[in-house]
Amino acid sequence: MAPLLCATSFPRHSRLHHLRFPLLLLLPSRSLRSAAPLATPGLDLTNPTYVVWGCNTGVGKTLVSAGLAASILSPCSTDPSAFLYLKPVQTGFPRDSDSRFVCRKVSALFRRHEGGSISGLLASHHVLNASRAAARELLGGRFEQPDEEEGGAASRGLCMYEETRIGVGEAKEGESKLVCKTLFGWKEEISPHLAVKREGMPVEDSSLRELLRRCLGLSLGGGGDDGGKKRIWRVIETAGGAASPGPSGTLQCDLYRPFRLPSILVGDGRLGGISATIAAYECLTSRGYDVAAIILEDHGLSNEVSLQSYLRSRLPVLVLPPIPGDPLNNLLDWFYESRQTFNSLQEIMLSAHIKRIQRLHDMPRKAGRLFWWPFTQHKLVPEKMVTVIDSRCGENFAIHKVLDDQEMIIPQFDACASWWTQGPDSTFQIELVKDIGYSAARYGHVMFPENVYEPALQCAELLLDGVGKGWASRTFFSDNGSTAVEIALKMAFRKYMSDHGIHADFHKLGPKGSCTELRVLALSGSYHGDTLGAMEAQAPSSYTSFIQQPWYSGRGLFLDPPECFISNEIWNLSLPDCLQSNHLKPEDTRFSSCAELFCPSRDTSAVAENYANYISKQLSDFAASSHSILVGALIIEPVIQGAGGMHLVDPLFQRILVRECQSRKIPVIFDEVFSGFWRLGRESAAELLGCQPDVACYGKLMTGGVVPLAVTLATESVFEAFQGDSKLLALLHGHSYSAHPVGCASAAKAIQWFKDPNTNANFDIERKMLKELWDVKFVHGLSSLPAVQRVVVLGTLLAVELKANGCDTGYASLYTSSLVQQLRDDGLYIRPLGNVIYLMIKETKFLLMPKFGERLCSGAVNAVEV
Amino acid sequence: MAPLLCATSFPRHSRLHHLRFPLLLLLPSRSLRSAAPLATPGLDLTNPTYVVWGCNTGVGKTLVSAGLAASILSPCSTDPSAFLYLKPVQTGFPRDSDSRFVCRKVSALFRRHEGGSISGLLASHHVLNASRAAARELLGGRFEQPDEEEGGAASRGLCMYEETRIGVGEAKEGESKLVCKTLFGWKEEISPHLAVKREGMPVEDSSLRELLRRCLGLSLGGGGDDGGKKRIWRVIETAGGAASPGPSGTLQCDLYRPFRLPSILVGDGRLGGISATIAAYECLTSRGYDVAAIILEDHGLSNEVSLQSYLRSRLPVLVLPPIPGDPLNNLLDWFYESRQTFNSLQEIMLSAHIKRIQRLHDMPRKAGRLFWWPFTQHKLVPEKMVTVIDSRCGENFAIHKVLDDQEMIIPQFDACASWWTQGPDSTFQIELVKDIGYSAARYGHVMFPENVYEPALQCAELLLDGVGKGWASRTFFSDNGSTAVEIALKMAFRKYMSDHGIHADFHKLGPKGSCTELRVLALSGSYHGDTLGAMEAQAPSSYTSFIQQPWYSGRGLFLDPPECFISNEIWNLSLPDCLQSNHLKPEDTRFSSCAELFCPSRDTSAVAENYANYISKQLSDFAASSHSILVGALIIEPVIQGAGGMHLVDPLFQRILVRECQSRKIPVIFDEVFSGFWRLGRESAAELLGCQPDVACYGKLMTGGVVPLAVTLATESVFEAFQGDSKLLALLHGHSYSAHPVGCASAAKAIQWFKDPNTNANFDIERKMLKELWDVKFVHGLSSLPAVQRVVVLGTLLAVELKANGCDTGYASLYTSSLVQQLRDDGLYIRPLGNVIYLMIKETKFLLMPKFGERLCSGAVNAVEV
Repeated sequence: MAPLLCATSFPRHSRLHHLRFPLLLLLPSRSLRSAAPLATPGLDLTNPTYVVWGCNTGVGKTLVSAGLAASILSPCSTDPSAFLYLKPVQTGFPRDSDSRFVCRKVSALFRRHEGGSISGLLASHHVLNASRAAARELLGGRFEQPDEEEGGAASRGLCMYEETRIGVGEAKEGESKLVCKTLFGWKEEISPHLAVKREGMPVEDSSLRELLRRCLGLSLGGGGDDGGKKRIWRVIETAGGAASPGPSGTLQCDLYRPFRLPSILVGDGRLGGISATIAAYECLTSRGYDVAAIILEDHGLSNEVSLQSYLRSRLPVLVLPPIPGDPLNNLLDWFYESRQTFNSLQEIMLSAHIKRIQRLHDMPRKAGRLFWWPFTQHKLVPEKMVTVIDSRCGENFAIHKVLDDQEMIIPQFDACASWWTQGPDSTFQIELVKDIGYSAARYGHVMFPENVYEPALQCAELLLDGVGKGWASRTFFSDNGSTAVEIALKMAFRKYMSDHGIHADFHKLGPKGSCTELRVLALSGSYHGDTLGAMEAQAPSSYTSFIQQPWYSGRGLFLDPPECFISNEIWNLSLPDCLQSNHLKPEDTRFSSCAELFCPSRDTSAVAENYANYISKQLSDFAASSHSILVGALIIEPVIQGAGGMHLVDPLFQRILVRECQSRKIPVIFDEVFSGFWRLGRESAAELLGCQPDVACYGKLMTGGVVPLAVTLATESVFEAFQGDSKLLALLHGHSYSAHPVGCASAAKAIQWFKDPNTNANFDIERKMLKELWDVKFVHGLSSLPAVQRVVVLGTLLAVELKANGCDTGYASLYTSSLVQQLRDDGLYIRPLGNVIYLMIKETKFLLMPKFGERLCSGAVNAVEV
Repeated sequence: MAPLLCATSFPRHSRLHHLRFPLLLLLPSRSLRSAAPLATPGLDLTNPTYVVWGCNTGVGKTLVSAGLAASILSPCSTDPSAFLYLKPVQTGFPRDSDSRFVCRKVSALFRRHEGGSISGLLASHHVLNASRAAARELLGGRFEQPDEEEGGAASRGLCMYEETRIGVGEAKEGESKLVCKTLFGWKEEISPHLAVKREGMPVEDSSLRELLRRCLGLSLGGGGDDGGKKRIWRVIETAGGAASPGPSGTLQCDLYRPFRLPSILVGDGRLGGISATIAAYECLTSRGYDVAAIILEDHGLSNEVSLQSYLRSRLPVLVLPPIPGDPLNNLLDWFYESRQTFNSLQEIMLSAHIKRIQRLHDMPRKAGRLFWWPFTQHKLVPEKMVTVIDSRCGENFAIHKVLDDQEMIIPQFDACASWWTQGPDSTFQIELVKDIGYSAARYGHVMFPENVYEPALQCAELLLDGVGKGWASRTFFSDNGSTAVEIALKMAFRKYMSDHGIHADFHKLGPKGSCTELRVLALSGSYHGDTLGAMEAQAPSSYTSFIQQPWYSGRGLFLDPPECFISNEIWNLSLPDCLQSNHLKPEDTRFSSCAELFCPSRDTSAVAENYANYISKQLSDFAASSHSILVGALIIEPVIQGAGGMHLVDPLFQRILVRECQSRKIPVIFDEVFSGFWRLGRESAAELLGCQPDVACYGKLMTGGVVPLAVTLATESVFEAFQGDSKLLALLHGHSYSAHPVGCASAAKAIQWFKDPNTNANFDIERKMLKELWDVKFVHGLSSLPAVQRVVVLGTLLAVELKANGCDTGYASLYTSSLVQQLRDDGLYIRPLGNVIYLMIKETKFLLMPKFGERLCSGAVNAVEV
């Protein structure tokens, strides 16, 4: 027979002894930290895989694991099975060893029925790592001082192995298998994080998860000689309660969250146990876990009745008979008595597993049939292209895929930041959940006008002390960038009317209150949202055709802006025809760094004069063309035009535009929906530009990326233009969920989180900006690729426009389709803007960068093939 | 000295004996159920009031209460204090009595220091109700069989009282007071809900809360002779863990939620205690409680370090020395050793209390300075009119007010359903929180287009099987009613173009893609939202003046609709001039019931013919007037025009309108943002009308009233009009948080909750409609009042238009201001629509109805005085 663990990356046992008595093997184990990254870091979910949580320590998690294993590995079953039991963290070791307990108890139960058994059982118990103190205790005289260099002073990897075979002869096919593993053991019976402190052997969360992932990947039935067709059950048993710390101090419910495995909760049947069970259950569900069942020991208090009522029959609650208190009792009778319950548990788990897999399979088809996706030509999205998102953890989606017949859950980096809304890491995500839960529970939603409640007030205070600092004094909440822009336009126009003495009879209903017509000054290529008012403020584009928006007329004076980007390692300024001039020197249009581009010293350059003259002339020409049509507001996306294709407008041009407008008392609106809250490295793009608007719009990242909320900030003088004796002078605009507490609480949390160096490691508190996230050499390399037209890099954003011609450029272009598909397969969820692809990251140690570069080298030029 | 409890509603003790030894008094106690409703049902928060929660049973809650009381009632303090300790629920009684323990232990601690004491102490212990078994145990031979009639067979109210005086002589002024009360005691040491089952004395949640509220209102220092100036501390100690059931089975964390008192959590210092403490903490915060501090016993495991790290210093964690295990130890030394910790706890609690009150006081001023409220003329909202909403519980706000120098938290019924978004009761609110927390933790937000994830899919399935059943096959998500309407218009116009062979070059950018102009057919008085596109679809109104929306032009053919309402006890049909006809009989315009109004048999009446002719003529006249301007969509608010003033449009008229449009292949849009999800008694207003739209918009109530989410549903043939080979043919509209998981999960929950008779007691599953909520006589009475112009009542809605003239009518009218203020003082948070006031309720047992009627009788006619 082939070695048991042949399919793993662990050292092979050259030959295992198949004895009916335990055997101890001592093998060197590989250092954890040297584990090479795997090609497919996904998790195989083909077979049922569960985590067993306890609502406290000592509630019987291990008995449940053992009972379940015994039920699955029933000697009476005609269908041989395999059961993998993993105990990632064990303290009190080796005196306590849950994996040893499970291995021996299940073996004993199997042996008990050997007479009537149909299949055999091979049971093994394996310890991968133990602290030196635990190893010494375990091995006694056989313990050798480890190599100080390899294992570190206070930690030790070891490989302790024991194996038992019970059954119907060695050659018997269809033998069942039980594999039990302890991943890390410490001697003292205390919380693992304390044990690490006292005994050494620290384990990083990522290392623990990686080892666990590899262990879960063990192909128990593999190796060829038994076909690998049998069902493999996998159970991970946690240590202590659901929120007990792991070795690093991270709570276990957070530590294992990236896997988000379905769960079994072992409840408490004692006095106080209803509360403990419910609290632990909520602790798990509020971290996104699915709990398939609760199981608890009967203490005669019928706690299960209260639990069922609390759960509203959402999941079953199973009751185990009282566990004998006598420590000498071998529990075999108890297990026998509990067998029906464990059988039920097994059925529940299997059925939940099958249902989950089935649903994951059905989702793409159903989605294609029931959804109407925004900005999507459904005809171009066949079922196989639909991404099934099982969950999100920080910046990663966990997507479902079937690869080589295996049900996989694979991490995919959300490179488009889900339409630029995302910034949080996994810690922040769970922190946000707490604040959201608290606000929803405290307020639900409450009426905003004329009222005040804490989250709205706190959010307003933080906004005015943050992005609005120095200029804004009023907060007007709405639901999304588009509504925030419509509100901004109403504010700016009213301010303009007030400043320019345009009086309209507000009692007169309808459009004929004035013979004046107001327009915006705006830049070509800008985009401010999808509702009509926001669209009217943008220049004609693919989004504004008659077929898309029959009511669009384009109520603006639209200027072509000068643009900056990196090409062949240099920042270039590209001027539209209207701004070309013979007076410009090469140093006016080429910059060695982004900082140079933003440098205020450019304000006195020839380019600046050129800009100012151009803008002045445009405004006076427009004014001359009609007396009744007036430019009532300037609206721009400061620094970067997002949806238009990630174009960096020359900051000098925008600065002068603002100056020229404000000198003419034309109110200035900054649409910072995309750029706000550190997206471009500063809290606001206004800060980058070095000028202040009269009105500005924010959204997207504001809530930390969890619920919609937008805000329009305004100066006090804009606000005052709406003051009066009549309600009809007020700003009559509002949405049902104006300033909803959940959104405001999220925003308050996010605004603080992003600029606290304790919570955002990439925040440079001295310079009040994000640390540089992008490697200059890498970016320069990209900008020199033949397939690349231009690169823009700023703050969290990297955008690359691919060289394409004619119909392959612009929003509708499918030029990048195959490249995007490749990148998604690489683990980068990219969503292109036509022939522009972009990434938003939040950490300098972004590991997928080389992959991205590689694909652009090789893939981009082939993109056109699709 | 005056009796101790003189200021309460409990029976007065004619004379109390002030002894240094306990005294037992047996007094009859009033029946709980006969408690008359109080005039001011608020909670006085002038003095620090806290709830002590435990993360489990047996973690030392009572020791913390006693230690805190001893710290506050220090014999060394020059400042005499008062401390009220309440134990609402005690099991294991009288063997265990936490209130007795606190009384005696604090007395003993006080006595110990008597030599050095400055003030005296009067300590009392009082038991209000005990089960018969507990009373028998307590009183032994003195127990008399209660009057079966009064106390009920298995319950017993009693009044056990003991009192101790320690100190510096009876006349001493500035004596401190300790009052300890057990509200309900049961004999067996089991969970209260089980004790009730075994011993009787059931207590409804509302009764328990009412008694508790009255006890909290005790003016310990009152009664005149000691001035009542001293600070009174109040502490409520819960039973068992935070989520342990109370007597009715309701979890205590839910039971006490309407008070939302600030909290102290007693944690667990043992192995597993980190998890237990965190889980209990999250259990409290996810119900909206503020936890001021965590305190736990030291077990040598430094659990406080992990807790601090988890809490990110949001609140302090205090550590108490190990509690002696010896049951004979009187703990006095332990309390002495712990005194610094309790002093710190006291300071933390006092400081949190002061900060809270201060913040509540500051909020109106800050709100007036920082907010820009929607639909609000700030000049008309002085600081004193700002409502401070401390929290919401089900349908009630808890608002902060200062009344007679007392800091009050007062319930106020949210009669405007917070802009029609609210429907949930308090149970549903907490259920929603769980689903929201789960979704936020599982997904945060993730990209929607081309993707699928569970909450969005589940929500789509439920929508298409609910409001969309029978006609819709596609779900397009957005953020609010206004965006949903803009999307609906784009859908309908495209469908119209497709059906009528209007081809536009979608590659051609900008507005000149077609020489055709599209308009909507709509009704005067309708309102579809505040973004420009939605506004263009409404007739000219106060909201559309040039000063409000300079870009409004009113792109519609607007018809004046016939309207129905109750006046003088009869449903009347009021026809606009254009629909007047000589052929109508009185029975055509007067109806004995609302059902008659909706009856399909009216389709063959003379009125119907009149309507059809009128609509036909309007459409053909319009078509004749221009060949390039076409009616491309019908948009209506089915049944009731909400923001326009709660007008019930004759359902027959709308039915014919739909028929006429559909026969001309003009797509029909129903704006069900207000009417959807049972607001009008049916799941959709379409169901009431008995016809099906091509496109419909939903929002508001859809998420159960917690976060913004909207959806536009469409038929498959509308969807197909967007299919093609180019992305530029797709519906290019979308918002950042499209189909955000939190919103979709809330909606999925709400849609199911509303139509499940197990969760919605007002749902009539047979007839698939809400039970009749309004008392016919009452409504008829209202409709006959001289001050009332018309009444509309349907489903959850009651709207009353007050008679007013000229400038006192319409949206800007302040006619109802004083009436609204009176109703708010009565506990009804009304927000008027000009001279129309309305209520939305969800239960037939709405207690404030008589008050409403009374005010309308007396108040409305005076409204004009303001």
